[in-house]
Amino acid sequence: MKTPNGSEATKTTHKPLPNSRKVYISGKIHPDIRVPFREITLAPTKSLNGEIEVNEPVRVYDTSGPWGDPDFHGDVSQGLPPLRVKWIRDRGDVEDYDGRVVRPIDDGWLSEAHAAHANRKRPTSNAQRPTFNGSDDDSLFVIRASSFAARRSLRAKPGKVVTQLWYARQGIITPEMEFIAIRENGRTVAGGGDPGSSNGSRESGVNAAGYNRNDLSFAHRGEPFSANIPREITPEFVRQEVARGRAIIPANINHPESEPMIIGRNFLVKINANIGNSAVASSIEEEVEKMRWATKWGADTVMDLSTGKNIHVTREWIIRNSPVPIGTVPIYQALEKVGGRAEELTWEIYRDTLVEQAEQGVDYFTVHAGVLLRYIPLTARRATGIVSRGGSIMAKWCLAHHQESFLYTHWDDICEIMAAYDVSFSIGDGLRPGSIADANDEAQFAELYTQGELTRRAWAHHVQVMNEGPGHIPMHMIKENMEKQLEWCDEAPFYTLGPLTTDIAPGYDHITSAIGAAMIGWYGTAMLCYVTPKEHLGLPNKKDVKDGVIAYKIAAHAADLAKGHPGAQYRDNAISKARFEFRWEDQFNLSLDPETAREFHDETLPAEGAKTAHFCSMCGPHFCSMRITEDVRKYAAEHQLSEDEALRAGMEQKAREFTEAGSEIYANL
Amino acid sequence: MKTPNGSEATKTTHKPLPNSRKVYISGKIHPDIRVPFREITLAPTKSLNGEIEVNEPVRVYDTSGPWGDPDFHGDVSQGLPPLRVKWIRDRGDVEDYDGRVVRPIDDGWLSEAHAAHANRKRPTSNAQRPTFNGSDDDSLFVIRASSFAARRSLRAKPGKVVTQLWYARQGIITPEMEFIAIRENGRTVAGGGDPGSSNGSRESGVNAAGYNRNDLSFAHRGEPFSANIPREITPEFVRQEVARGRAIIPANINHPESEPMIIGRNFLVKINANIGNSAVASSIEEEVEKMRWATKWGADTVMDLSTGKNIHVTREWIIRNSPVPIGTVPIYQALEKVGGRAEELTWEIYRDTLVEQAEQGVDYFTVHAGVLLRYIPLTARRATGIVSRGGSIMAKWCLAHHQESFLYTHWDDICEIMAAYDVSFSIGDGLRPGSIADANDEAQFAELYTQGELTRRAWAHHVQVMNEGPGHIPMHMIKENMEKQLEWCDEAPFYTLGPLTTDIAPGYDHITSAIGAAMIGWYGTAMLCYVTPKEHLGLPNKKDVKDGVIAYKIAAHAADLAKGHPGAQYRDNAISKARFEFRWEDQFNLSLDPETAREFHDETLPAEGAKTAHFCSMCGPHFCSMRITEDVRKYAAEHQLSEDEALRAGMEQKAREFTEAGSEIYANL
Repeated sequence: MKTPNGSEATKTTHKPLPNSRKVYISGKIHPDIRVPFREITLAPTKSLNGEIEVNEPVRVYDTSGPWGDPDFHGDVSQGLPPLRVKWIRDRGDVEDYDGRVVRPIDDGWLSEAHAAHANRKRPTSNAQRPTFNGSDDDSLFVIRASSFAARRSLRAKPGKVVTQLWYARQGIITPEMEFIAIRENGRTVAGGGDPGSSNGSRESGVNAAGYNRNDLSFAHRGEPFSANIPREITPEFVRQEVARGRAIIPANINHPESEPMIIGRNFLVKINANIGNSAVASSIEEEVEKMRWATKWGADTVMDLSTGKNIHVTREWIIRNSPVPIGTVPIYQALEKVGGRAEELTWEIYRDTLVEQAEQGVDYFTVHAGVLLRYIPLTARRATGIVSRGGSIMAKWCLAHHQESFLYTHWDDICEIMAAYDVSFSIGDGLRPGSIADANDEAQFAELYTQGELTRRAWAHHVQVMNEGPGHIPMHMIKENMEKQLEWCDEAPFYTLGPLTTDIAPGYDHITSAIGAAMIGWYGTAMLCYVTPKEHLGLPNKKDVKDGVIAYKIAAHAADLAKGHPGAQYRDNAISKARFEFRWEDQFNLSLDPETAREFHDETLPAEGAKTAHFCSMCGPHFCSMRITEDVRKYAAEHQLSEDEALRAGMEQKAREFTEAGSEIYANL
Repeated sequence: MKTPNGSEATKTTHKPLPNSRKVYISGKIHPDIRVPFREITLAPTKSLNGEIEVNEPVRVYDTSGPWGDPDFHGDVSQGLPPLRVKWIRDRGDVEDYDGRVVRPIDDGWLSEAHAAHANRKRPTSNAQRPTFNGSDDDSLFVIRASSFAARRSLRAKPGKVVTQLWYARQGIITPEMEFIAIRENGRTVAGGGDPGSSNGSRESGVNAAGYNRNDLSFAHRGEPFSANIPREITPEFVRQEVARGRAIIPANINHPESEPMIIGRNFLVKINANIGNSAVASSIEEEVEKMRWATKWGADTVMDLSTGKNIHVTREWIIRNSPVPIGTVPIYQALEKVGGRAEELTWEIYRDTLVEQAEQGVDYFTVHAGVLLRYIPLTARRATGIVSRGGSIMAKWCLAHHQESFLYTHWDDICEIMAAYDVSFSIGDGLRPGSIADANDEAQFAELYTQGELTRRAWAHHVQVMNEGPGHIPMHMIKENMEKQLEWCDEAPFYTLGPLTTDIAPGYDHITSAIGAAMIGWYGTAMLCYVTPKEHLGLPNKKDVKDGVIAYKIAAHAADLAKGHPGAQYRDNAISKARFEFRWEDQFNLSLDPETAREFHDETLPAEGAKTAHFCSMCGPHFCSMRITEDVRKYAAEHQLSEDEALRAGMEQKAREFTEAGSEIYANL
């Protein structure tokens, strides 16, 4: 991919993936829900003897939202349709209100005049500022004047709790939960979308019967590590897992545009992509485009980690256009409001920021409330001290005030805000290790223990919780992290950054960390925060975002396979079948990145004919190992081996005789 | 890196890595040995209070050979100096002889005229044919007429065995073994190169005292999995491991140019890079350049998997210029000699090919002798059949002849050839799984069991052995591979291809496989065969080779850390210290790929000043988490925390009091 930045990249975001179409499955309990999948059409198998075998299309989990549907014609200035708004209102427990007034300081400006002055100075050339859809607006006032401004906020009615955890505990299966059940099963469960009730089928060309076609059911061997995944994910199973606190559905009532998804270790492993501008780089348009780009390639959630100016307006654009949950670290914005001076932070400023972001629709907040004053000196002798930005901010505040942080002392107040909007906690790991030398040390584990305390207190408020984890951890110390988190945090979902398994490869930390991420995902981590090749070096551009997302889709899928998730291996089997049968196009199209797969193939054998040839580019046209296997099968078939297990057993018997006799028994078969 | 191919790439191979110089450590038992390292010079630490701390240079394992030494002025038409020739001759057990006459068929031609005719038709433009060192020879006759042709072959005198295993069993510590002991310790052992006896020091500017300076000794926590690595690797330990069969030193007496290295699980994990032309692509020059390129970035061995024409001459050029052991799969060349018709292969043709390659200096042969006739039908019901090229060839032969393969029936004859030249076995896994669906199946494990039998039979001939392993294996099934191999093959070194942990990411299989490679390396695999991004799609170019090597250096190093190898973590610690102290240049230079690290940094903050600034590109100049940590340390130092463990314990006591009292105890410290 050569789309590091800019308008060329903007265009390709919306090019549908090859041989793919968007299909929707509707619900049974809630017939109005439409769960999106990407369906990949395959070529038939042509065997050497001329027989034709139809290969049914393959459906895959799809995070791209309406942006991935060619029938959707919206644009980013309007935002996405509010998919969930009826579900939210129908519950009868929310109220409209005029949210807090957005002030210039929310974007880091002392006054509206400062903002206007500064933004006019922004570069306007296309080279520096990619634009939306070819338009070339060069002022943030266009952004501010969008239709988003008219939106009113929702919150829980007095005395009500509107979290998915609350509903689950009441035994309610929400539309979100059924949506997730259908989504998680993917193509593995017969009748996951009941043909009779599938309005998706009628409306969007779904072949309702297709849901359980093409079942290449190779048995899964071996035991999952710490997961307990049923063969079919039911809406009731989703409810139970949420009620138990083992899974969360990040779904702020002010982000109705998002498509429900779940984070928990008995579900598909999810990945998060971080985006965000900073004091030295980036622009709003780029960040919105990065969000769409990340979800095109499979990001399940996106964190907006913007710092510097225009944080509020950047976030507004991201949320209104995001089909996936959005996470933030509110202390970043609060810090900007006090001019970057950590010691000037106050509970009031932080509280106001939480409300501001909750009204916008942020789905989960990272809160570093586990950084207790007494843990901070434990980092003084570390090789790399405190590397979490949020952790550093709170450490600085604690030291300056000689007090426990307001995040910890106001935890219950924070929980009340979260409960009124259904914002989920992502309890931060501010003392995570920043090097192999610091892995699994006292400071890290002390904070993890406190994360457990905070988890239980949040649950008392019916607030959904996941816990953040490290960081830099060598392979042999990864498992201890998962075990302690499960024990100390009562099985709340774990959400880790990698971990990176060595420090020595800046420029390749998507790989150093994909190793650790795959392993900890297998051990039970529910969501993996991606690391891009730019980690430790700079801010990711679009190529880095894609590289990070693909590396983490690999890690998550490898973990799903190892956990024995029933919705995982069918895709491996389909692509392996295509590979074995020299269906090159299908191999490309079933892969995580069809464009790169095709491009790499064509570097060696560019001709179109090579993609239908019965040979591969490694061995050349004359000889190919896969071709020889066809002879083996033919041989086996001639001796009726492939059809008859009993005969195969007989073969083995004969093989033993052969070995003992040293003669040519095969000739007599 | 934008050096996919061609002359630009050729040039950069020889650009030394930044702030690096080649240093040599000499032996104690064998004073004439000179063990190469790359020494990276670091900047001093400038603390905020103005103090200067010297950071001693860091030495790293170096596979680049003389090509990485600016004082070496040879070129590829002359080959490398024969480093080991005196050691080999001094043992008094070898004889010179005129080897077999090279015939046109060795390069796939029916006659010399055919070869001349075909080679004259080869493209000569620079775009298609990168040249050596700017020369533009356009005929293979130039290559044939090189000084290589004058070389005579060595073999064991009648009745002698010349393998390192034989010497080890006799209690002999060869120069190769001492070389390896020094090389494996790296900078971790005091006096690894005795200053008094270091002629390397005198000749090449070694700071002899530097070997044990800068010891950032952070303790390793956690237990290694199945390794038993001493704190210091001694020559005697090397000898014992070789004698036991747990490690091999691939070192053909006809490849004196190679620098000794060891493959065994109680040593640093090694990586192999595959190169080789094929029927559809590549040229000799490219392959030689790929070999040098791969060893520049850290390949410990290189396998020449050439097929098609000019196999013999390509290999000659590679071996004469390679500072690392070279492996091949001789059946590939044998197959070319019979026009690609597997069923026409004979023991005589294969035997002749083994001798041909042993005389050239190939250090290890992959031999797929474990593909027994009775195992072949076990693959008929697989998802992807037989994917190993060697396995397929032998399966085809076995089926055509209804006989056990000549590799198996002539195993003892093969061993005798190996023993006469000290060629090591890499017993192939011809039935390795080519998909997740086929992992750990009967066919695979049946062959592994036979690999064990073959291992013991080779050991009886004093031939060194390692075993090849898979392939495509999901994470939860990897450990079983290692356990069975250790048990069935009596702890002979395991050498695996990845394994790939999912099938769904063609274009990114360096990542899918680095995950599995890191894990199986931790479990005890001694060498990891790299997978490039082009796997399944096409032939790797130079960029792919580098991407594959770096991904595997990451996997191997992550495994070394997890195994607790004493020569591993110092590099992580040095780079983390540089990172923490904002020594950007040092962070780049200590990384596996300094060029990419620097390039990525400069995309965000291109100015030179940014590389000495006390901030990082993620958080910008105003605020940085690492900067805050300095405040924490200052705070801790003011309270004398960093110097005094006892006081730290007191802090924790006070912290407990603080929590209980809820008051500001810190203020009183």
